[in-house]
Amino acid sequence: MLLEVVGTICYAIAGKCQQAVYTISMLESELFTKAAKESPKDEEALNAKLLIRAGFVQKLFAGVYSFLPLGLRVLKNIESIIREEMNKVGGQEILMPALHPIANYETTGRSKINVLFHTELASGSKLVLGQSHEEIVVPLVKHFVQSYKDLPLAVYQIQTKFRNELRAKSGLLRGREFIMKDLYSFHLDEGDFDVFYEKMKGAYRAIFERVGIGEDTYLTYASGGTFSEFSDEFQTLTDSGEDTIYICDKCKRAINKEIKEKYATCPDCSGKKFAEKTAIEVANIFPLKTKFSDAFNLRVKGEQGKEVPVIMGCYGMGLTRLLGTIVEKNADEHGMIWPTAVAPFKVHLLTIGEAAQAKGASLYNKLQKHGISVLYDNRGDVSPGQKFAEADLIGIPSRVVISDKTGDKIELKRRNEKEAKLVTEKELLGLLSNS
Amino acid sequence: MLLEVVGTICYAIAGKCQQAVYTISMLESELFTKAAKESPKDEEALNAKLLIRAGFVQKLFAGVYSFLPLGLRVLKNIESIIREEMNKVGGQEILMPALHPIANYETTGRSKINVLFHTELASGSKLVLGQSHEEIVVPLVKHFVQSYKDLPLAVYQIQTKFRNELRAKSGLLRGREFIMKDLYSFHLDEGDFDVFYEKMKGAYRAIFERVGIGEDTYLTYASGGTFSEFSDEFQTLTDSGEDTIYICDKCKRAINKEIKEKYATCPDCSGKKFAEKTAIEVANIFPLKTKFSDAFNLRVKGEQGKEVPVIMGCYGMGLTRLLGTIVEKNADEHGMIWPTAVAPFKVHLLTIGEAAQAKGASLYNKLQKHGISVLYDNRGDVSPGQKFAEADLIGIPSRVVISDKTGDKIELKRRNEKEAKLVTEKELLGLLSNS
Repeated sequence: MLLEVVGTICYAIAGKCQQAVYTISMLESELFTKAAKESPKDEEALNAKLLIRAGFVQKLFAGVYSFLPLGLRVLKNIESIIREEMNKVGGQEILMPALHPIANYETTGRSKINVLFHTELASGSKLVLGQSHEEIVVPLVKHFVQSYKDLPLAVYQIQTKFRNELRAKSGLLRGREFIMKDLYSFHLDEGDFDVFYEKMKGAYRAIFERVGIGEDTYLTYASGGTFSEFSDEFQTLTDSGEDTIYICDKCKRAINKEIKEKYATCPDCSGKKFAEKTAIEVANIFPLKTKFSDAFNLRVKGEQGKEVPVIMGCYGMGLTRLLGTIVEKNADEHGMIWPTAVAPFKVHLLTIGEAAQAKGASLYNKLQKHGISVLYDNRGDVSPGQKFAEADLIGIPSRVVISDKTGDKIELKRRNEKEAKLVTEKELLGLLSNS
Repeated sequence: MLLEVVGTICYAIAGKCQQAVYTISMLESELFTKAAKESPKDEEALNAKLLIRAGFVQKLFAGVYSFLPLGLRVLKNIESIIREEMNKVGGQEILMPALHPIANYETTGRSKINVLFHTELASGSKLVLGQSHEEIVVPLVKHFVQSYKDLPLAVYQIQTKFRNELRAKSGLLRGREFIMKDLYSFHLDEGDFDVFYEKMKGAYRAIFERVGIGEDTYLTYASGGTFSEFSDEFQTLTDSGEDTIYICDKCKRAINKEIKEKYATCPDCSGKKFAEKTAIEVANIFPLKTKFSDAFNLRVKGEQGKEVPVIMGCYGMGLTRLLGTIVEKNADEHGMIWPTAVAPFKVHLLTIGEAAQAKGASLYNKLQKHGISVLYDNRGDVSPGQKFAEADLIGIPSRVVISDKTGDKIELKRRNEKEAKLVTEKELLGLLSNS
């Protein structure tokens, strides 16, 4: 059966919905992480400062972070949104290894690129850690794809990547170890590739909308790097971004500074006025043409029986970078402000004083029965001031308070609004179910 | 709201059930993998032969495999069961990195263990790839745990491990890169540790029951290796196992051959008769005492104000090894026989002949509406013989056939039964919904 959950359809696998795996709610007294009073001194980036201070992540060393319960919940929410959109465009999910034979990189001429981590087997065979998976996915797909009938094909994974960056000072925006969704598409001809490439742009737009950064994210012409002549980036405006982009006043297409000199006017609409902005690259998509298919001799029999090389595209999106970007975009002087779709919990319930405990426990149960995820700050040994400050820092979208002062009512304050309001329990459940 | 799905409760996160992410059903014509006629020649282990032949996994090199769509679905089902049971015992899920500073291993004296993969940063700092996470989780937890009030604590992750094995000839049973659930528990004293340790044994039992190997899995006394004096293994009987165990006739507790000489009689019941069996170690649990807490000086203030070292336990379970074990245990000369709880799909629907197509498409939709996951072999260019052979190889629990011969009825055959039966559509939906 299909399950309708707050307007979303939930499918079951092998007879059961697997989402039972994530507990919907949690008592803050049981959460092992604790918010810190101060930001970490060894971080420069806002995203890392806030995420570490609030106990979402912990730094192991520069560019390498552990995800703690609150951070992992956000990451899983982002993963889920990305997976849905990749499945919608017909992507088939797989999972490729991180250990790669360097021989595959010699085949494509990429064995010397400097972001590679090197290691070796006990036998002496040379390996590198995957920084992308063209060298693995092409031989993998070649095993199954022989004819035009096997195309088009899109496979993707959500998996850990390793890049030996010289510097890693941007928190989750540039990791040495990070989680990425990488999709690879395979086509009989350029026409078919073009259709899918546009479809992927739409899927990416949908993801950015859903995680709450759609409005400030611009499709941007950029250099193709070692891959191809050009690529399309999605750039999200933030003060902390490493990139500079020029947004066309007329059509809102952007051009990355790295190739801006080639374009006096906008390639899309011939507009001449541009706004210069600082931005973070949240995703990129590349036409690969036959670069990797040629290297591994991935060819198919065409409809006329003649063998042709396969046209490819690749489509990356860093989940951890996206998480860091959402923080950079959604914060104030008090802390983070999570968009509901990716928030670790939908509601932060706070009880102040002994008398509020019983009412709090009852509301905690009711919210769960309404399918609303709650972090319940039931701690008795923490001052009201600290509870409020930490709730602002953690940034759950709705804060609900029960105290002596709220009387028969309950206080509801949205993290992204200034004013709190007093409502009845019934009103509260209605308001929270519809947001 | 809570969602009841075939007897299981599904919770929603952040207002939506995330299980929408896995598509419930699939057309086999769209699945990019293809079953092979022959087993791969470079594999010795039954699990690898069958999984590769059926297109569940692909070998990159010895001990390193890619998971393809069918294999990934099984892996996700196993992951989901393990996560549920870990959450039930109060485990808090986190995600730690694979890149570890070797300095942490020098602290614990494990920097020379020979399964470590070594690599380094561009700056020259030495790193190893995580083969287990004691060296990371203890400093992580130390940041948050200061008092007896912060204990007990159990944190776990489901994450990729790397072990530089000299040989890797057992398919998914011994990987150089593999997925593991590792839980670490932290206690104020031995008494509290003992209580949790027993709870974990129960959780492990529940997992083995749910994935269908409960009956043949024995709790086994084993050596503690570099960790501690002894450990408890869970050993599953199979002809292909690397271990030999001695099962007590009287109480069914087992002893690993490696320490059998220490025990003339069963340590649990003093029984004297043992059955010698070949088995696979599917999980192990270790008392770590204060070995790692001492190394990192993880101490807490006790109730009397005095500082005491924290008592630890660790609890590993390889997901990929478990998957391989399930295959070893559930196969016949025709292929795999998946237990329903982990099967990639619940039903394999086959249509034979042009006339069956419309009826097949209609049944495919109906099964999905009943929440039953289906792989629909709608391929027109494949012979009935090949369809049947591949269905047996892939091993989905229920095979449903529509053909000229089935008339108004539909043929249902369970993969683990000899006989097929003809049923009406209504009967079929009833039978499949209840299994």
